Amino acid sequence: MRNILIIGAGRSASSLIKYLLNKSVEENLLITIGDLSLELAQKKTNNHPNAKAIALDINNTSQRQEEIQKADIVISMLPAHMHIEVAKDCVTFKKNMVTASYISDAMQALDAEVKANNLVFMNEIGLDPGIDHMSAMKVIDEIRAKGGKMLLFESFCGGLVAPESDTNLWNYKFTWAPRNVVLAGQGGAAKFIQEGKYKYIPYHKLFRRTEFLHVEGYGKFEGYGNRDSLKYRSVYGLDDILTLYRGTIRRVGFSKAWNMFVQLGMTDDTYVMENSENMSYRDFINSFLPYHPTDSVEIKTRMQLGIEQDDIMWEKLLELDLFNATKIIGLKNATPAQMLEKILTESWSLEPNDKDMIVMYHKFGYELNGKQEQIDSKMVCIGDDQTYTAMAKTVGLPVAMAALQILNGKIKTPGVQLPIKKEVYEPILNELEEFGVIFNEIEMPYIGYNPDKLMGN
Amino acid sequence: MRNILIIGAGRSASSLIKYLLNKSVEENLLITIGDLSLELAQKKTNNHPNAKAIALDINNTSQRQEEIQKADIVISMLPAHMHIEVAKDCVTFKKNMVTASYISDAMQALDAEVKANNLVFMNEIGLDPGIDHMSAMKVIDEIRAKGGKMLLFESFCGGLVAPESDTNLWNYKFTWAPRNVVLAGQGGAAKFIQEGKYKYIPYHKLFRRTEFLHVEGYGKFEGYGNRDSLKYRSVYGLDDILTLYRGTIRRVGFSKAWNMFVQLGMTDDTYVMENSENMSYRDFINSFLPYHPTDSVEIKTRMQLGIEQDDIMWEKLLELDLFNATKIIGLKNATPAQMLEKILTESWSLEPNDKDMIVMYHKFGYELNGKQEQIDSKMVCIGDDQTYTAMAKTVGLPVAMAALQILNGKIKTPGVQLPIKKEVYEPILNELEEFGVIFNEIEMPYIGYNPDKLMGN
Repeated sequence: MRNILIIGAGRSASSLIKYLLNKSVEENLLITIGDLSLELAQKKTNNHPNAKAIALDINNTSQRQEEIQKADIVISMLPAHMHIEVAKDCVTFKKNMVTASYISDAMQALDAEVKANNLVFMNEIGLDPGIDHMSAMKVIDEIRAKGGKMLLFESFCGGLVAPESDTNLWNYKFTWAPRNVVLAGQGGAAKFIQEGKYKYIPYHKLFRRTEFLHVEGYGKFEGYGNRDSLKYRSVYGLDDILTLYRGTIRRVGFSKAWNMFVQLGMTDDTYVMENSENMSYRDFINSFLPYHPTDSVEIKTRMQLGIEQDDIMWEKLLELDLFNATKIIGLKNATPAQMLEKILTESWSLEPNDKDMIVMYHKFGYELNGKQEQIDSKMVCIGDDQTYTAMAKTVGLPVAMAALQILNGKIKTPGVQLPIKKEVYEPILNELEEFGVIFNEIEMPYIGYNPDKLMGN
Repeated sequence: MRNILIIGAGRSASSLIKYLLNKSVEENLLITIGDLSLELAQKKTNNHPNAKAIALDINNTSQRQEEIQKADIVISMLPAHMHIEVAKDCVTFKKNMVTASYISDAMQALDAEVKANNLVFMNEIGLDPGIDHMSAMKVIDEIRAKGGKMLLFESFCGGLVAPESDTNLWNYKFTWAPRNVVLAGQGGAAKFIQEGKYKYIPYHKLFRRTEFLHVEGYGKFEGYGNRDSLKYRSVYGLDDILTLYRGTIRRVGFSKAWNMFVQLGMTDDTYVMENSENMSYRDFINSFLPYHPTDSVEIKTRMQLGIEQDDIMWEKLLELDLFNATKIIGLKNATPAQMLEKILTESWSLEPNDKDMIVMYHKFGYELNGKQEQIDSKMVCIGDDQTYTAMAKTVGLPVAMAALQILNGKIKTPGVQLPIKKEVYEPILNELEEFGVIFNEIEMPYIGYNPDKLMGN
């Protein structure tokens, strides 16, 4: 039996574990699932004979090292900052390793040792980062193989609610960490390149400079810019590209409505509000509005945000019950962002039968034989239920597939790496199609970053 | 001879030194001026026989302690974070001390020792903080003495250009550190109380929620909120006050125009711009605008900011030469804020004969015998020239006066303190009037924080 050690049995490990258990008999695998919570680990084994659950505290060095020594490969689904001790042990005991997290500086620093020991440390092989790298590099490599020169790369991804569960005016529910949604875009201007020029969008304008995206069968979406669109410029070999933009996908209208919170100052996480514990929803919004001796909070909100009474923006605020004077938020020493998160969680939580949806959209512009061409590549994945969510599938399946490929010696180039080589992305993208993660690539005339043409898209 | 040691001979020390030199014969004073630059210290002596210039490096412990031992009182005009070593020596050698800076935690921690040695460490006795404390506490104490109950305190201060030197469309020139002007309001929401309710304004809205102020003989001004209006709530004994607001004064229209920079993202100091060294003024503004294949930078700017062609906002941008494609900013690895500062410095620097102006405006609302009353207290000070500026006078004179009062045993309550006691503010405010720093107190019906009434003010 070959022993795969999975550390961390949280939400994103469900599809990963299911995939490996399904392969365990034919592939002769023993799956050891370690988590701080033995109960959680046991639940994920699904009573499969090839699975073993253990209580594992990664801060317990001797236990951690003992389990790693017993493994043939280690999958770490821990929070990103906790991988490094596991990674060092994997070097010491010469074990391959897989994570879905961004390569940290500490992880990168192990590269020489990992190579010297002929090990594979595969990282960033979840959804985003992960499937985005693989599906993008596949098309970029194809364009280059034809002799094309890349002009434009735009890439968008979003975790949304599936159409059949899309029941509120915001067309949005929390399918992942709500805090990250509330803080999205903060901490510096969004930076990207358009037609050869560096561009910057300050946070308070981010949600007003979106781009529309159309996905066949699913309708219209919008994307707002990520903070740093240039992170993978060199990694993808796009140093000379004219347009490079990465963004987050929402349903059309979300960003305009979200911008109301930004404009009021409700997403600020840098200070604690006075008396936050006793504030009602109404007190909360009123904190961001000027005092007026007679005007109501409602009128002041409309004045401040320029909302006419028949504007759908107004309905969106009402749907959140924001003007309720008796509902108490009840958070001690909370920042505006924490208060807002609490309010939104009440409206935007998934119902038991709700399903989530992942949408990914890449645009590739290139020049071939003096002609400008474009390929749009789109993927939509719907969750099965609230365990095997679209997020769990798209994060966990590529991790599981990569682990098995490494174990079987199919992926063998050593080093600390991310999945941008054909050796890695080709078999995994192919296998993902069996699980419904399918990219639809459409060739079309080059549009480029021309806002007028985009309007009509 | 009594020896006053002044550490730091920078711009704000000019009026301070002149005042003490003028008093030096009758008061039997030897003024020792220490600065890292001997030349600067010498210049400030003005060849007065009672003055002595020394090169003083405050990081040289033995020299610093030697000079402090020789002094009867020490005035530190160093940057705020550099006072503490001097203060510790003053405790050791039992010398009184005066600064114009905010009381740091480290300074406050010396309070018990300062009291035990019967010393006076007077801080925050410049302009703002300083004259604001004194002129406010005078009126607050008078209201309380009459039996009045404070309802409202609003306090505004601004360093501006004098009317006779006010020659640009922004009605503004840099009379103090330009960097502080560019960064004003950043680092968190503005926080204050209006009619008993905590209010918060996010940075990107700060310059659109101003209040108008009228000063007889000088016309109309506007004030935008400071970051923390509540800092002195307890110090002033205003824990139960309904409205507490502090702000910065500008000429009307400045904030609306400044908001253009804020909206574009030009005041951001948190990231470095790519290729900043080679950017023209035009490149700089274009970095914050969307790419467009045919629209000019001018048209994109107008679209983005909603500026009609005959709007004075547009003229203000043109006056700064912001669209010049050949003028290079020339700063390496610069933030947007640094780039903007460089551009503004070219337009907003004082001409050799320009004069500056300080404006301070307090509003006191109170209830007396069941009736609501208001006192507005206003002060305008114009600089003599570019040495004895309004800023140098209003910062330096109260420091000098306090030092002499302490030396003469008139101010004697020991401890680390700020000038909120009558013992301190009464003689100093009286003497400041001889130097043209005069508060005009006007009794009027209570307006309170009523935006509609304020509009007509």
